[in-house]
Amino acid sequence: MVKIVGLAGSLRPGSYSQMALADVASRVEALGAEVEILDLRSLRLPFCDGGDAYPDYPDVERLKQAVLNADGIILVTPEYHGSISGVLKNTLDLMGFEEFSGKVTGLISVLGGQSNSNALNDMRTIMRWIHAWTIPEQVAIGQAWKAFDETGRLIDESLSERLNAFAQSLVDNTQKLRGSAKQVAVA
Amino acid sequence: MVKIVGLAGSLRPGSYSQMALADVASRVEALGAEVEILDLRSLRLPFCDGGDAYPDYPDVERLKQAVLNADGIILVTPEYHGSISGVLKNTLDLMGFEEFSGKVTGLISVLGGQSNSNALNDMRTIMRWIHAWTIPEQVAIGQAWKAFDETGRLIDESLSERLNAFAQSLVDNTQKLRGSAKQVAVA
Amino acid sequence: MVKIVGLAGSLRPGSYSQMALADVASRVEALGAEVEILDLRSLRLPFCDGGDAYPDYPDVERLKQAVLNADGIILVTPEYHGSISGVLKNTLDLMGFEEFSGKVTGLISVLGGQSNSNALNDMRTIMRWIHAWTIPEQVAIGQAWKAFDETGRLIDESLSERLNAFAQSLVDNTQKLRGSAKQVAVA
Amino acid sequence: MVKIVGLAGSLRPGSYSQMALADVASRVEALGAEVEILDLRSLRLPFCDGGDAYPDYPDVERLKQAVLNADGIILVTPEYHGSISGVLKNTLDLMGFEEFSGKVTGLISVLGGQSNSNALNDMRTIMRWIHAWTIPEQVAIGQAWKAFDETGRLIDESLSERLNAFAQSLVDNTQKLRGSAKQVAVA
Repeated sequence: MVKIVGLAGSLRPGSYSQMALADVASRVEALGAEVEILDLRSLRLPFCDGGDAYPDYPDVERLKQAVLNADGIILVTPEYHGSISGVLKNTLDLMGFEEFSGKVTGLISVLGGQSNSNALNDMRTIMRWIHAWTIPEQVAIGQAWKAFDETGRLIDESLSERLNAFAQSLVDNTQKLRGSAKQVAVA
Repeated sequence: MVKIVGLAGSLRPGSYSQMALADVASRVEALGAEVEILDLRSLRLPFCDGGDAYPDYPDVERLKQAVLNADGIILVTPEYHGSISGVLKNTLDLMGFEEFSGKVTGLISVLGGQSNSNALNDMRTIMRWIHAWTIPEQVAIGQAWKAFDETGRLIDESLSERLNAFAQSLVDNTQKLRGSAKQVAVA
Repeated sequence: MVKIVGLAGSLRPGSYSQMALADVASRVEALGAEVEILDLRSLRLPFCDGGDAYPDYPDVERLKQAVLNADGIILVTPEYHGSISGVLKNTLDLMGFEEFSGKVTGLISVLGGQSNSNALNDMRTIMRWIHAWTIPEQVAIGQAWKAFDETGRLIDESLSERLNAFAQSLVDNTQKLRGSAKQVAVA
Repeated sequence: MVKIVGLAGSLRPGSYSQMALADVASRVEALGAEVEILDLRSLRLPFCDGGDAYPDYPDVERLKQAVLNADGIILVTPEYHGSISGVLKNTLDLMGFEEFSGKVTGLISVLGGQSNSNALNDMRTIMRWIHAWTIPEQVAIGQAWKAFDETGRLIDESLSERLNAFAQSLVDNTQKLRGSAKQVAVA
């Protein structure tokens, strides 16, 4: 069984990014994978200071262990200023090569305005930097304020089909790529 | 006289990014500009939750006012995972179009390993997103641990000349571009 | 008076990129600038082989002289595979620092599908690499097949207003930035 | 057995990109894969005009068939102006989703100056756009004029080890990912 961890980079109550994560997580679970959502709104994390030790913040270790033990990771970011949110980037900065190398990631962005792939592009480069795989399927959910119904499911049919393809690819390809001998980092 | 604010996205004591910012700030001041450094290590800022109000964090307002009143902004980031640090991105997320539109920015990155322009590229896209100008001169300081002498000045001659060109361009072009009628945002 | 050269990276008869270029050129001219369009469909250019001499292709020299004598450049690209067209990139490869350094550029992309800023982002990085300025205003024209009327003018009001802002910014800021002492290249 | 096609985006006689491609191809072959190099210097290809039919250029069909029948593709680009060469981008523009979807690609760039990952980043985004996988291992060969010995092999030990890791990852992961049901395109 494939183990997937999900992280969404928004702290807003009622966040659409968290909504998108919950939606896609249920699709991934329906395919037989085990999914754990780490809600950054309930973890207490520090700003990364470039070091490794955060003795006052036990949630750093909890975060790192969860990602370390996962086979794949779903990252959802609100697109802030045409890029990944600082909140999510800071969370990634607290981890690194050890947690991500050889893992399979899937990327989703959520925007208030028109859909765009800026944040997705930046995240893809970041993932490669810490030597993770990223599935070609990615989803940018534009005009998020009208994208979900009251139960938190995507309304748009074609977006919904793309989330299904995203979930299928993440599960299938995590199975295929898992257990790669971890490679030496390459810049 | 041109007013410049400097921000460096590292919280590490002894941070090379802060060192690079101090170095370039002194060069910019030597050209007659007024420079204010906002040290993120002494500001108390929250994680951005996508909202505008942070009543418990008066430093948010202080940050915003300083950037609002500036003509130009120097941004220095450590390159974490091939991109801007989460700390700096979060600081930018607390501001936006109002503070940056029409301003002139100059970008510097600091790396432990080989020089690379990933973080600079991402920052340039982010600056455009909030409708700021970015000068073509940019500097990536690689192998930062051996780049500075004990007084915090860059050792490498060619890097030092590039910081001079950076400072000159920032001051000259901020003068030229300042007072542009603020343009309507374009995505 | 400001001299602007326009280049569109599509060779298709009836190209929407060429249409967008003609449209924006007329707006730029209406602001008092001189605009020359170099239509890549009527220039005979070689593939760049990394060298400087193309004795069999006199249009290379014509292209270089036109850009060298311009104060600003409009670049329009069809977005092919999420980036600049090879045709336009090859045209840029035939030139370089000498023609572009210190010039002011404005960027437009044209897409068959949904609007996106991938090609614009790549072009912005490329422009910086050859030390040109790029105005913050940029326009991605999505679903180009329904974007223009039979006279070749943009139908959408908000896109049209953005092209006006683009033209105004290009002319105004080329005047301001022109005649900058050319800076030493910085990687 | 895995079938790999290699393409290098330089037309220069004595091209370092072609040299790098030949070097990595021999490493990939040593791992049991079948490698075909398509040398763009001996193919006669047109500039892409956005259409599908190039009756005067039979090499277009030869190119497309070779990539269509491959399981994986090695792309080597000289970094021109901080991005992919126009020559290579134009070659990719002549193909698309049909040839690349679900394939595994490996990316290498070759630079005259300091190593940088700009061209690699742009290529990675382009590959995703046409729904290909890209292995996390990538190699930027800086100061190419002193990187190879007279037999065309990389001199630098650490770069050489990275090319070995690149070759191993390309072969192993092409085997794992090959035969994925082709996914529906997602923008």
